[in-house]
Amino acid sequence: MIQVFVTGGTFDKEYNYITGQLFFKDTHLPSMFERGRSTLEVDVKTLMMVDSLEMREEDREIIAFNCRRSLHDKILVTHGTDRLVETASYLAQSGIKDKTVVLTGAMIPYAFGTSSDGFFNLGSALAFVQVLTPGIYVVMNGRFFPWDNVRKNKKTGFFEELNG
Amino acid sequence: MIQVFVTGGTFDKEYNYITGQLFFKDTHLPSMFERGRSTLEVDVKTLMMVDSLEMREEDREIIAFNCRRSLHDKILVTHGTDRLVETASYLAQSGIKDKTVVLTGAMIPYAFGTSSDGFFNLGSALAFVQVLTPGIYVVMNGRFFPWDNVRKNKKTGFFEELNG
Amino acid sequence: MIQVFVTGGTFDKEYNYITGQLFFKDTHLPSMFERGRSTLEVDVKTLMMVDSLEMREEDREIIAFNCRRSLHDKILVTHGTDRLVETASYLAQSGIKDKTVVLTGAMIPYAFGTSSDGFFNLGSALAFVQVLTPGIYVVMNGRFFPWDNVRKNKKTGFFEELNG
Amino acid sequence: MIQVFVTGGTFDKEYNYITGQLFFKDTHLPSMFERGRSTLEVDVKTLMMVDSLEMREEDREIIAFNCRRSLHDKILVTHGTDRLVETASYLAQSGIKDKTVVLTGAMIPYAFGTSSDGFFNLGSALAFVQVLTPGIYVVMNGRFFPWDNVRKNKKTGFFEELNG
Repeated sequence: MIQVFVTGGTFDKEYNYITGQLFFKDTHLPSMFERGRSTLEVDVKTLMMVDSLEMREEDREIIAFNCRRSLHDKILVTHGTDRLVETASYLAQSGIKDKTVVLTGAMIPYAFGTSSDGFFNLGSALAFVQVLTPGIYVVMNGRFFPWDNVRKNKKTGFFEELNG
Repeated sequence: MIQVFVTGGTFDKEYNYITGQLFFKDTHLPSMFERGRSTLEVDVKTLMMVDSLEMREEDREIIAFNCRRSLHDKILVTHGTDRLVETASYLAQSGIKDKTVVLTGAMIPYAFGTSSDGFFNLGSALAFVQVLTPGIYVVMNGRFFPWDNVRKNKKTGFFEELNG
Repeated sequence: MIQVFVTGGTFDKEYNYITGQLFFKDTHLPSMFERGRSTLEVDVKTLMMVDSLEMREEDREIIAFNCRRSLHDKILVTHGTDRLVETASYLAQSGIKDKTVVLTGAMIPYAFGTSSDGFFNLGSALAFVQVLTPGIYVVMNGRFFPWDNVRKNKKTGFFEELNG
Repeated sequence: MIQVFVTGGTFDKEYNYITGQLFFKDTHLPSMFERGRSTLEVDVKTLMMVDSLEMREEDREIIAFNCRRSLHDKILVTHGTDRLVETASYLAQSGIKDKTVVLTGAMIPYAFGTSSDGFFNLGSALAFVQVLTPGIYVVMNGRFFPWDNVRKNKKTGFFEELNG
């Protein structure tokens, strides 16, 4: 059983055609699992629906608390990409023991159809969470990064190693 | 560096609007890597473009030969799902040493847009090939299966363990 | 009020991922009207779900009967493209009076996402049926054709005038 | 020959995955004509790429000038929906003679895939411009409206008659 925690981010944003703004409605995760024809047992819980630029320490503590409390030792967290590394770092120092926690996100909302990277990222994050040893990881761009050796390049939008 | 071998299958099929039949043109793999914003180094080679129902022993030997000959020890093979397990089994007995070979496919062509499972499968297959120990694996439905413990359920289209 | 008769054709085909064949389930018309944000009053009736290559004279008579019987004088018929002109010709000789009947179809199934012409064809067919004078018309490729001056070019898939 | 003038609007907006903002790159009109398999002769010119909320009188004069100067008497203008009616009204009072001018837009960007209404609107606008008598019209929601009997309902996003 894989525990999935939804926290929002670009991954789950929608376009509001009245205001022209992006916003959150429900998560797309369940329909993505169905479309991916996944036969993994998953327990999906939406903890919050926020843009990672607006994520505060109390939000991060909610994520950490739920990771500690979860009965499952494989945990996938969807998250906005701008502060994804900060949350990974927070989780690494919050007393989560013997669990593999993978954080992933998307650069283009899943709802925007065939241009989004989200479905690919979900596939790779689910795979990595099943086989990586306990620890906190970021999964983006087809790769996994230990939490303490990754940054988002603000110019290109790619995730890269600190010494890359 | 990940070696990618394309062999066809539903994954890469297109709809011919003149005849109403499915057919092969070029592989979608490169554009899928771009859309997935993958920063993995990959070497993509199209070995053939065939429906797996029409795949013969000489086709399988071409795949095996190229797996043995590849300079890379992480190999991803895209393949039709109907005979994917047979090819995995062939590869397991063809003298490939110290390499991780992952076979994946799709139930719905990538070209058919937001209904296809292909992009998700590519994400998970790429992840698994990076971290699984040497051997021959099938990746479908978000999971990996060792080549000798998997079958395709012809009724549901899902892959499952032999003793499942 | 616009009367819409669904008869099948490529327009409404789906991909069966078990058999790899195309088949019919429900029509996509209602969800297409919603996505197009249409505020037209429409009455959608599915008369049959057949490939136009398999359409027989009794099927055409069902369409003609329903066109004659409809209380509305603006009628849109979705139809397979291969025999669309034959059905238009049949309708023209079946005693439909003082009604504008527009037949349209698609070269690529609507279900195949961003490659399909179906949504564009629906938009133009709905527009033409509102403003053309009574008669039987074929709408494809952004244009309308009177029933007795159109053929489908089997090589290109485009509809063209007989003297074109 | 149909003259097409592109002015921007939601129709042609893209998502910038670095900033999370919508922006303009190139128009999608040519690829939309191709996907719609249109065989109409069209002359597509991009006059500007602006959000209609930022459209000023000098922009409207550019559109009017080009409508007057065009050698063609069937003109399609793509435009943001928020001020589409204002531009239609401006054009009606700018000395365009014996020409059918149709303005259309989209509530959801065409680039956002299978949720956008843009492709449907393009199909209906192209149809209406071919058959309506000279004048200035707004085409949205599957319908045409004379310029002086239409408003955008800001709450629902639907276009409706003034006396509706």
